[in-house]
Amino acid sequence: MGSTFGHLFRITTFGESHGGGVGVVIDGCPPQVEISAEEIQFELDRRRPGQSKISTPRKETDTCEILSGVLNGVTLGTPIAILVRNKDHRSQDYGDMQVKYRPSHADATYDAKYGIRAVAGGGRSSARETIGRVAAGAIAKKILKEIAGVEVLCYVKRIKDLEAEIDDTAVTLEQIESNIVRCPNSEMADRMIDRIEQARDEGDSLGGVVECVARSVPLGLGEPVFDKLEADLAKAVMSLPASKGFEIGSGFAGTLLTGSEHNDAFYMDGDRVRTVTNRSGGIQGGISNGENIVIRAAFKPTATIRKEQQTVSKDGEDTTLSAKGRHDPCVLPRAVPMVEAMVALVLCDHLLRQRAQCGETWKE
Amino acid sequence: MGSTFGHLFRITTFGESHGGGVGVVIDGCPPQVEISAEEIQFELDRRRPGQSKISTPRKETDTCEILSGVLNGVTLGTPIAILVRNKDHRSQDYGDMQVKYRPSHADATYDAKYGIRAVAGGGRSSARETIGRVAAGAIAKKILKEIAGVEVLCYVKRIKDLEAEIDDTAVTLEQIESNIVRCPNSEMADRMIDRIEQARDEGDSLGGVVECVARSVPLGLGEPVFDKLEADLAKAVMSLPASKGFEIGSGFAGTLLTGSEHNDAFYMDGDRVRTVTNRSGGIQGGISNGENIVIRAAFKPTATIRKEQQTVSKDGEDTTLSAKGRHDPCVLPRAVPMVEAMVALVLCDHLLRQRAQCGETWKE
Amino acid sequence: MGSTFGHLFRITTFGESHGGGVGVVIDGCPPQVEISAEEIQFELDRRRPGQSKISTPRKETDTCEILSGVLNGVTLGTPIAILVRNKDHRSQDYGDMQVKYRPSHADATYDAKYGIRAVAGGGRSSARETIGRVAAGAIAKKILKEIAGVEVLCYVKRIKDLEAEIDDTAVTLEQIESNIVRCPNSEMADRMIDRIEQARDEGDSLGGVVECVARSVPLGLGEPVFDKLEADLAKAVMSLPASKGFEIGSGFAGTLLTGSEHNDAFYMDGDRVRTVTNRSGGIQGGISNGENIVIRAAFKPTATIRKEQQTVSKDGEDTTLSAKGRHDPCVLPRAVPMVEAMVALVLCDHLLRQRAQCGETWKE
Amino acid sequence: MGSTFGHLFRITTFGESHGGGVGVVIDGCPPQVEISAEEIQFELDRRRPGQSKISTPRKETDTCEILSGVLNGVTLGTPIAILVRNKDHRSQDYGDMQVKYRPSHADATYDAKYGIRAVAGGGRSSARETIGRVAAGAIAKKILKEIAGVEVLCYVKRIKDLEAEIDDTAVTLEQIESNIVRCPNSEMADRMIDRIEQARDEGDSLGGVVECVARSVPLGLGEPVFDKLEADLAKAVMSLPASKGFEIGSGFAGTLLTGSEHNDAFYMDGDRVRTVTNRSGGIQGGISNGENIVIRAAFKPTATIRKEQQTVSKDGEDTTLSAKGRHDPCVLPRAVPMVEAMVALVLCDHLLRQRAQCGETWKE
Repeated sequence: MGSTFGHLFRITTFGESHGGGVGVVIDGCPPQVEISAEEIQFELDRRRPGQSKISTPRKETDTCEILSGVLNGVTLGTPIAILVRNKDHRSQDYGDMQVKYRPSHADATYDAKYGIRAVAGGGRSSARETIGRVAAGAIAKKILKEIAGVEVLCYVKRIKDLEAEIDDTAVTLEQIESNIVRCPNSEMADRMIDRIEQARDEGDSLGGVVECVARSVPLGLGEPVFDKLEADLAKAVMSLPASKGFEIGSGFAGTLLTGSEHNDAFYMDGDRVRTVTNRSGGIQGGISNGENIVIRAAFKPTATIRKEQQTVSKDGEDTTLSAKGRHDPCVLPRAVPMVEAMVALVLCDHLLRQRAQCGETWKE
Repeated sequence: MGSTFGHLFRITTFGESHGGGVGVVIDGCPPQVEISAEEIQFELDRRRPGQSKISTPRKETDTCEILSGVLNGVTLGTPIAILVRNKDHRSQDYGDMQVKYRPSHADATYDAKYGIRAVAGGGRSSARETIGRVAAGAIAKKILKEIAGVEVLCYVKRIKDLEAEIDDTAVTLEQIESNIVRCPNSEMADRMIDRIEQARDEGDSLGGVVECVARSVPLGLGEPVFDKLEADLAKAVMSLPASKGFEIGSGFAGTLLTGSEHNDAFYMDGDRVRTVTNRSGGIQGGISNGENIVIRAAFKPTATIRKEQQTVSKDGEDTTLSAKGRHDPCVLPRAVPMVEAMVALVLCDHLLRQRAQCGETWKE
Repeated sequence: MGSTFGHLFRITTFGESHGGGVGVVIDGCPPQVEISAEEIQFELDRRRPGQSKISTPRKETDTCEILSGVLNGVTLGTPIAILVRNKDHRSQDYGDMQVKYRPSHADATYDAKYGIRAVAGGGRSSARETIGRVAAGAIAKKILKEIAGVEVLCYVKRIKDLEAEIDDTAVTLEQIESNIVRCPNSEMADRMIDRIEQARDEGDSLGGVVECVARSVPLGLGEPVFDKLEADLAKAVMSLPASKGFEIGSGFAGTLLTGSEHNDAFYMDGDRVRTVTNRSGGIQGGISNGENIVIRAAFKPTATIRKEQQTVSKDGEDTTLSAKGRHDPCVLPRAVPMVEAMVALVLCDHLLRQRAQCGETWKE
Repeated sequence: MGSTFGHLFRITTFGESHGGGVGVVIDGCPPQVEISAEEIQFELDRRRPGQSKISTPRKETDTCEILSGVLNGVTLGTPIAILVRNKDHRSQDYGDMQVKYRPSHADATYDAKYGIRAVAGGGRSSARETIGRVAAGAIAKKILKEIAGVEVLCYVKRIKDLEAEIDDTAVTLEQIESNIVRCPNSEMADRMIDRIEQARDEGDSLGGVVECVARSVPLGLGEPVFDKLEADLAKAVMSLPASKGFEIGSGFAGTLLTGSEHNDAFYMDGDRVRTVTNRSGGIQGGISNGENIVIRAAFKPTATIRKEQQTVSKDGEDTTLSAKGRHDPCVLPRAVPMVEAMVALVLCDHLLRQRAQCGETWKE
């Protein structure tokens, strides 16, 4: 019971990796927003497996169908249900994993919690579940752009120790999509790709850091004291598979500065209050301050690897496992649209919440 | 509209730094749990200002009153309301801050969002709001201990670049409380205290990292896919004032390892499935695996400092500010009980959620 | 934004009468419950149009597909998504209703609220939306029966002024399903059927009262003070199309008695506390007392009728309307499985909530 | 765990009849609304015991204190906490009720659910709990009036079989408050008062019907399909102590009409779509249509009476009880401000929800 996210722009995902399909129901979407299956499919294609030589070779088209809530390309204000069918998979690849728990994967804990588990493809713990999130995120991004002019962009900042310098104020979607690792620094991107291929060839995997910037965010989003904007962003990101850490603005590195070094000085830019630096990451006191929102998420190296590992069987026997199947040697390129979707969902939800309580019409 | 936290063990805090008082209502607490005002006061005393030479010299006793939900020291199963009165403060210290925005503080964003703000003491954005959280956390800790034998402990891991080695499997409350900075490594604690005093004397401030360990956590807590245990922990911690980052287990550092280095190998410990290492931080697939839960939170250096800073006034004029008043040169010693409370609240909520859906009585 | 119902056993419905389909996502269902598509289809068949001469002649098979959450006939504890495809309807019947508002229908208010509306078949305001509720209710009933031995039964108590005497302690599903009006008093059922046919032939419609009994309900369900069991039942029933009133136990008639006449005297039945009468309807202080829960719901006569009525057009012109299309002359026979579903959903949700806060394991 | 009501304008009540006090926390109140303790006290005085010869002779002033969320008479947008202290009661009146269950009261079910109960004064099941609701309702009414010009009025429509004719389009607060039974038909009010006094003298009690009208409600409030406006109103009213039934517009009586008799014909009133009659009670398809919202609530005769009744003791012995203490012979006069508060809370919540999803600024 935790498949719903958001308070006013609220999504509920469903689906296992195998079975009828995966999808999402979006409740609370404003009416009269233009949205097409193509716009959703664009994001799903960025997320799907088999998209490049450094992702899993599994081929899935992940074609979406809008079941409800949209008529003639326009939202009705009613729930939008989106379905992506699962393909008929042969399950033999999972034979070994049916009885042996993959280290650092969800196999053992799902068995412990529910006493039952859809083994094939990871069931509900499969990254396939994020299809619903990415589809909903496409709609959230459309609303953010149309209503408020907000732009949300994610990219790979670091693979293992290969870190790219990226100017979050200038980066574009075109730069991000210009290479298969989704790092908008092309020289570093090449090195990252090499490193991922090397890990794959060794039957191993890599992790890294995704960075996300949201630009032109309106002032005033965020609901202290628990639903502070960064708190909801943290939850959103940490609910993604393989995430191990979250930071905003200066993050962990900011703790190495003193207050006088760290504080973002205010200045007037015309009649707008702005900050000289942005160590706050665009949020102060849990509320957006109009500067760019900048967050980072740590993703661990993929748990499922070909290298032999020590583990136990479902029956409680010590054993070893060399994972078969086709797995991503590094989740980060495909995590980029996932983080983007989650950030967009949080911002869209808070845009509606801000309208409700503090909308302009309360006081003229 | 964001002052409620939790789904089944649900708290709602209220109160500004000035005004009648601050407090909390806890809804969903099981009946027949023994709880005394003293147990709550113990935690509030760890949180209160003026407790040591390295915290703000403001003196507040923060005495709590249980208004409802407890009869003769036993919970009724009805809402527990706890109130801590505010003292009558002289407001003159805030004269300057009434018109000038403190850099990296919530002053400007509250004005932008609500168009009105309780200036004295920071209003709702004051850390005084966390009194309600800490009081509720005391009850959550009691339930966790009584029902499930869970122990939650936090401590200061790092002040600026002074990092302590701490064995999370062995650390005790006594060690943590043995010094005023709440770092259970006494030699490093002395150095941290010196460093904080130095910053205070310079009119500056410091940040750092708090670590939290939860031991003897039952298997199976956490509700994928959005209410994964680490996602709710991240939100809990990132809703605290001054927090800038969150990580679980190996966190950001874990991204520097390969999968074969990072994975936690399974082995059988009698009939219990355990892991050799704990880079997962006690949670796999969003669900507790029975190992220690280990998280870390980054807290920035206190925003309010005596050193002169560039800022703007409420009226849109560029100016400078040297903050008066009595502020903590470093929030971490007082953040320890706050993080502890938030972690306990999340675990208690998920303990109830686990009982509801997957409780033993479903299947014999 | 109101398509989710329930707190722990939580359903979200989606779908318009035309478009891809309608359905439901159920989150929070306990794992390891046996459930088959046939059990769900059984309830959908009781709800579907075209089932008898007194329902709409529209033919729809309403075949359900379980998309997720169930593997080999057993629930996984993950979200259960159920889809019923819409048929390809010709829309010409709706030509007139596209421009003219049906009196006492949702046409005008949907236009006013959303500024857009799926006209064909009533869109989201169509009773077709209740397919998702009935499908979820089938699972709720299964859980109630398996876990707690609870039985939920609804039947038609009154059509216009034709009221049947029915013994709620003895009525069976077989009796209810023995005739097409679902009134377990066969003599009165015949008269009701005649009356409905007469209304249909006159281009008119009828309303009435559905009664629901839940037997063997455990003691202790209900969460004062707002989520009292009767409060959640009232919301559940009043969210159904065409409902105009709700009562529990003695209801409105009970207000004609004095306290000494109305109170349910207690007595000991072995070691069980029972009541001599049941004017409380099985709930006291918002909490089930172990007696039968008995509620009644008023359904107005169908708004869409063939008889000519005064109305206005979408463009603001006074006009008249004789509704074409195939509509139920009386919703009550098909409302029976809907009320049953809603009552089952509320009871199932509260069964989980009771386990969470007051489950046996808290105190031995 | 059910002490919170509302989605965006959200209240949480706390408190037992004895103990520190009762009150409410209101989260989501818009900022910059003028509100004074006097306005809240005005409503509490309408609710308090001892206000007239036909209410309980218990004297309680029920003086409220605003603890937070309001500064200099203006709301801050932060949680508003309101506290009413309990008086120090002597508990001897409850001696007998400590061991004997009052028929049709919450004594037995609270014991069964929680295994513990605050006996004195009824604990949490006391009508004293509604103080928090009425205080919050006062603020909701202020917002409704200021922002949207909405007026909410309740009155006694019927006591036992004494029913008053009241024109809901014209009734005023002055008429309602002109007599102690709160029936705006003064002749009938006198008869009602006599009847209540007679019942009290006989050690008995009476029930009846409260009607509520909300005028000038904006078009478009209500969130299908579950949070339809009448569904939330039903839940609100059915959560009040002693309520047994709810109806909107034509209600149960409407089921005696045919569709052609029952439908509300539309006509153009200038450029506004209006209805000739109002059997819909101001809501169609779950959404307000701009006509007066009219609902009715049935309240049973007070359960606690002086007349001897058959009951059982906590220890499982058959016995009899003559309730001591000072109880209302009829709850309806004091239920009037309670229903008014609950209706106002629902409307205020939906006003915010409507702004969030369908606010004007979405589409110009």
